[in-house]
Amino acid sequence: MSTKNYTVEGMTCGHCEMSVKEEVGEISGVSEVTADHTTGAVTVTGTDFTDEQVAAAVAEAGYTLK
Amino acid sequence: MSTKNYTVEGMTCGHCEMSVKEEVGEISGVSEVTADHTTGAVTVTGTDFTDEQVAAAVAEAGYTLK
Repeated sequence: MSTKNYTVEGMTCGHCEMSVKEEVGEISGVSEVTADHTTGAVTVTGTDFTDEQVAAAVAEAGYTLK
Repeated sequence: MSTKNYTVEGMTCGHCEMSVKEEVGEISGVSEVTADHTTGAVTVTGTDFTDEQVAAAVAEAGYTLK
């Protein structure tokens, strides 16, 4: 199990945080996601997930991984 | 049937617009709601709805009627 920190651009409110958390949380192996729209900080905890999967999920939610 | 224009504070994105539209749309008699987070403009079309009902619905969604 590991935790990685990312920065996401474009989140403006709690709804945006929820969208990112939902999409990233659907990645196989991911067990926890936090998102803070004020800083853009997204932390992902789990096993065997890749940056590419996180970037794709963030894009699916409508935002951009920095 | 009439249309009234309101200004709502605090909407930052399309999710916020959806929240306002959903809550205001639940008011009895309301048939159409538009919301624009860039201007705060919310238009409500319907019959027999009151400003107080709109204010309450906007507050329920988490925003403030100006």
